[in-house]
Amino acid sequence: MHLNRRALIMSSAAGAAASFTLGRIDIAQAQTSSGASSMAMAGSGEQLPGAYRYRLGDFTVTQITDGMAARPLDAGFVVNAELEDVQGALQEAFLPPDKLFIPFTPLTLRSGDELVLFDTGFGESGPPTAGQLARGMAAAGIDPAAVSCVVISHFHPDHILGLTTKAGEPIYPNAEVMVPEPEYAFWMSDDNKANAPEGRRGNFDMAQKIFGALGERVSQFKWDAEVMPGVTAIDAHGHTPGHTVFAIESGDERLMFLADTTNHPALFVRHPDWAAVFDQDAEAARQTRRRLLDMAAEERMRVAGYHFPFPATGHIAKDGEGYRFVPAQWMPVLDGQA
Amino acid sequence: MHLNRRALIMSSAAGAAASFTLGRIDIAQAQTSSGASSMAMAGSGEQLPGAYRYRLGDFTVTQITDGMAARPLDAGFVVNAELEDVQGALQEAFLPPDKLFIPFTPLTLRSGDELVLFDTGFGESGPPTAGQLARGMAAAGIDPAAVSCVVISHFHPDHILGLTTKAGEPIYPNAEVMVPEPEYAFWMSDDNKANAPEGRRGNFDMAQKIFGALGERVSQFKWDAEVMPGVTAIDAHGHTPGHTVFAIESGDERLMFLADTTNHPALFVRHPDWAAVFDQDAEAARQTRRRLLDMAAEERMRVAGYHFPFPATGHIAKDGEGYRFVPAQWMPVLDGQA
Repeated sequence: MHLNRRALIMSSAAGAAASFTLGRIDIAQAQTSSGASSMAMAGSGEQLPGAYRYRLGDFTVTQITDGMAARPLDAGFVVNAELEDVQGALQEAFLPPDKLFIPFTPLTLRSGDELVLFDTGFGESGPPTAGQLARGMAAAGIDPAAVSCVVISHFHPDHILGLTTKAGEPIYPNAEVMVPEPEYAFWMSDDNKANAPEGRRGNFDMAQKIFGALGERVSQFKWDAEVMPGVTAIDAHGHTPGHTVFAIESGDERLMFLADTTNHPALFVRHPDWAAVFDQDAEAARQTRRRLLDMAAEERMRVAGYHFPFPATGHIAKDGEGYRFVPAQWMPVLDGQA
Repeated sequence: MHLNRRALIMSSAAGAAASFTLGRIDIAQAQTSSGASSMAMAGSGEQLPGAYRYRLGDFTVTQITDGMAARPLDAGFVVNAELEDVQGALQEAFLPPDKLFIPFTPLTLRSGDELVLFDTGFGESGPPTAGQLARGMAAAGIDPAAVSCVVISHFHPDHILGLTTKAGEPIYPNAEVMVPEPEYAFWMSDDNKANAPEGRRGNFDMAQKIFGALGERVSQFKWDAEVMPGVTAIDAHGHTPGHTVFAIESGDERLMFLADTTNHPALFVRHPDWAAVFDQDAEAARQTRRRLLDMAAEERMRVAGYHFPFPATGHIAKDGEGYRFVPAQWMPVLDGQA
């Protein structure tokens, strides 16, 4: 069941193009592209599920991979850097020079009876190398019906397509879906859609379809509000108008879920002034990135990043003009941590 | 089932002391120390099994955690550095300053019909926070009866106790056990035992008991020999007299299994001239470490380290007077890698 390597890369690149290029999002197309080869990947079952737990005060966090997408690097992925410099950063990280494997890593938070999922991955509707969240949750013994709340950082497809099945049914049937008020306002507006560049309209359609299907399950929160006890929503706009990160605190432990403050850390933690093609307002995104990475480094705060390689949690260290992501040590025992 | 944190650390530190301090190894003692609390840990099942796969040419490698041991850091663990400097290195790595969590990470290699295990972990006989290899193998779908060969790097307890049950039965009933000739010669010698410092004699007893029980299953290999097609044994003495690392090659891909060339990378990759208390000949171990880390960095070779945090594979980068371990990006899809 080994897929031909080139075929897989091509196929996942095609899937990624459908889902990633904000201008060309089309749910039907993404669903088609994840058909046969996605089944083959799932059936091969050769990579093991990626799920990892740690305590955060009284909370238990589980990081779960939704998979990855391969993205060619000759297509202006970093909009304000020379390809040669981007390749230098990849070389420094021992990554291939011609394509980037972009990971997707949602997390769950258990607090008493609450089980909260932060961002959803692609669900059934992504590239063939993604959509692994359900498998990882099963490995971690997490029943989708037990999820009491889904918190969304922003409305890009890799964060919200996994809210519903292709048929529009909720994947988390008992969950309230909590979304940032400015993000909801932006994408649900027909005026904004009409004024958007052609290439961004598909994302409006997708968001309106998903949140339309979810109806009254959806509630909105404001920046600086406590979404639930211990979880505060923080303005991180730039990547999208309502992009939000979350400070999660219990006892004297603290985790910052950075969502898409940076894309792959080897590029954008290391070089925080670089802008990925996905940033809707690159300058605002850059300022947000600098502010949050600086805070994380200064306070030696534990972070999780949606596009960090699984298990996608660790710390941010200052390094020259930029930063380095230092992955947390994998602890084979849940308690007895420092 | 949350264990009291302090109790766990104390209990695992006690287990670690029994198994680690080369002078005080006593199999019965280690077994006793892993009794009740080990059951509690296993029963809680709250951390997920750590098993990760990647391709290496035609081979498939699976890294599997055997767990960890907590080691207090005020006890001369680094024999030739000030505690303050050691704590500085831990601080740089965002690790706690007062204790080190030492991971154990065996790996398996599948090549055609051969399934080879490199080092065994503690099996049933280690501290309560170790002995997870069986669980990880089960998660990875690897049947102990399917292991055709166990290759041993050296005869310290965390590498060989998992060869047999407490009763002395082989855990891999169909496996040949291949060991380095100079390591076997050293530890099986009653003369060497009689001449050894008091504190090292327990390790002779343990090795003689285990390899005695295995009898004719055991075969020896020489340095520079091909242990099997694609796997070459390399002299890495110092840590022990016969400590061996393995160059694993298939097609144009290469992995160096560094075994105990370094203990925890945050200390001894970063500071290759530091010596851990476990190094039997500290100066020879230091020269071996410099030689192998330098080769890995120069050739940008993929490495795996037994005491590297799971998944324990990545690359070595030069950094000032020392090196940095750069973990490999976790690939949620087995094929389609670079």
